[in-house]
Amino acid sequence: MTDNAQLVIGTDLGATTVKTGLVRPDGRIVYQNRFPTRAADGPEAVVGQILLSVREAIEHAGGASLGGLGLGSPGVVDDQGVVKAPPNMADWDEVPLRAMLREQLQRTVEVENDANAAAIAESRFGAGRAHPDFLFVIWGTGVGGGIILDRKIFRGPTGGAGEVGHVVIDYEGLLCNCGSRGCVEAYVGQRHLSRRTAERLEEFPSSRILHYAKNDPTKIEPLHLSLAAEEGDPLAQEILHEAGRLLGVAIGSVMNTMDLRVCIVGGGVSAVGESVFAAMEQSVRSHVLKPLRPGIRVIRAQFGNDAGILGAAGLVLPSAK
Amino acid sequence: MTDNAQLVIGTDLGATTVKTGLVRPDGRIVYQNRFPTRAADGPEAVVGQILLSVREAIEHAGGASLGGLGLGSPGVVDDQGVVKAPPNMADWDEVPLRAMLREQLQRTVEVENDANAAAIAESRFGAGRAHPDFLFVIWGTGVGGGIILDRKIFRGPTGGAGEVGHVVIDYEGLLCNCGSRGCVEAYVGQRHLSRRTAERLEEFPSSRILHYAKNDPTKIEPLHLSLAAEEGDPLAQEILHEAGRLLGVAIGSVMNTMDLRVCIVGGGVSAVGESVFAAMEQSVRSHVLKPLRPGIRVIRAQFGNDAGILGAAGLVLPSAK
Repeated sequence: MTDNAQLVIGTDLGATTVKTGLVRPDGRIVYQNRFPTRAADGPEAVVGQILLSVREAIEHAGGASLGGLGLGSPGVVDDQGVVKAPPNMADWDEVPLRAMLREQLQRTVEVENDANAAAIAESRFGAGRAHPDFLFVIWGTGVGGGIILDRKIFRGPTGGAGEVGHVVIDYEGLLCNCGSRGCVEAYVGQRHLSRRTAERLEEFPSSRILHYAKNDPTKIEPLHLSLAAEEGDPLAQEILHEAGRLLGVAIGSVMNTMDLRVCIVGGGVSAVGESVFAAMEQSVRSHVLKPLRPGIRVIRAQFGNDAGILGAAGLVLPSAK
Repeated sequence: MTDNAQLVIGTDLGATTVKTGLVRPDGRIVYQNRFPTRAADGPEAVVGQILLSVREAIEHAGGASLGGLGLGSPGVVDDQGVVKAPPNMADWDEVPLRAMLREQLQRTVEVENDANAAAIAESRFGAGRAHPDFLFVIWGTGVGGGIILDRKIFRGPTGGAGEVGHVVIDYEGLLCNCGSRGCVEAYVGQRHLSRRTAERLEEFPSSRILHYAKNDPTKIEPLHLSLAAEEGDPLAQEILHEAGRLLGVAIGSVMNTMDLRVCIVGGGVSAVGESVFAAMEQSVRSHVLKPLRPGIRVIRAQFGNDAGILGAAGLVLPSAK
């Protein structure tokens, strides 16, 4: 392996898997591994798995000089790298992950929220390279996000910024998992889309969605909707276009508030067809103030599973000029 | 007059009046004047009126040393101090107001959007002194705002940030003046409140609102609602509490997006009673994510008519330590 001096370490901590990669400054991942997270065993076990994964990566680099370690984590991450209450991690209140990893590894460590890390990946290496300012949306089980201003993450006063999933689109609307009413996540999150499709299938008994879900309406995934929509299935198209339109309403509210024009959408559901992106962009444009309209762009994220490692690496790469 | 060396000049440009004050670093206005704007006569006439107002203030200071000039203007103000398309100003596309005033006055000039200037006034001298980060909302004919982060205005990439009036609260909702649907301004702006009250008065023929509006339902002002509500009038209370609740939904969306906890509300309608502020705060709290809830505060702005001069002065005062 050449140019080890230029490589940095990026770790993507998830509730089920810890992944670590060695990343070149141009965003190429030259090595990666994965370990189970052991999230049920408490923070000490999770930190042990992170160290296992990182040390294996360091070993793979052959002992040559490496840059720092960046890590993306679920939960709120404060500006000291303390990770607070990540979902689906047992007994985890507040853990000073950055300090712990620095001490164990004796190298530069930066920790960031995983959605923010994915936003950084797009900004630095992906669909956001041409856009200094954008809203990044993760459209999956829930709806999350991050905000990039002047090519840097906007964390907000306590690191919690970017929760676009809990922007309200109907004040008398559907109940959300967060306890509030009318959040956009309650309309376009994966669970809602699957349940809503199952309800509507009685009207569309011959829908191609059932074919992909193996005739089990409880097993509908967004991928099934996408595949059926591409074949022209009317129900799949209706559900996805409506979801794109509603997500666009929330994106429009954020753009009006923050004076943004570009939105990059990633996450599991974002594999939908171009027509859904067109519906989303049209919806955003119709909801923003006139001066913003000509610049409105809703763009598909470039990275899927690699976004976590790349964004984490981006935390410790020297900033591009 | 003593301590002239510490005074700065603050000008509040409105569509009907130009006001200029001499302001001490502690926020006391020691002198102010007002001139008609002549908005219908084009930008040159307006700039002439600004110069008239500023020069009268300088003359009043007795020729002693003064600091710079800050000016708050309607419209979008870019970071070069170019004022774009202020509403109700004839023939005004883009005017490089900062450059023009610098040349004419041969002193430091800073120009900012008027809502942002009012937010700066609260941050520096008013209800925001104890809060480094807050959302400022102007609740009046429309709904505008500004965002203060770390005691500085957040302008967004092109100076348009803070348009909280066009955050959507119902994606299938009322048509807004901006052409979009469901903006909170369409529900709680002064015109909507007056019209909605007039509609409802048929059900409440003995409402005290009619007394204050001199029995003319087309003349209802928010002040009439406030006065009637304080006397226990059920319709006035219902309309204002509902408006507070709906404005709170939009504020909650912004707080989730930007990780904010404090909102300061000024503008003509904000003279409503404490119970409306309580309804607003309760609504915000119920719409933000759990980690934000304990810190949620909705506070009345300290300044009314003086906010423009004070915020403009704040643009050119040395920053507080």
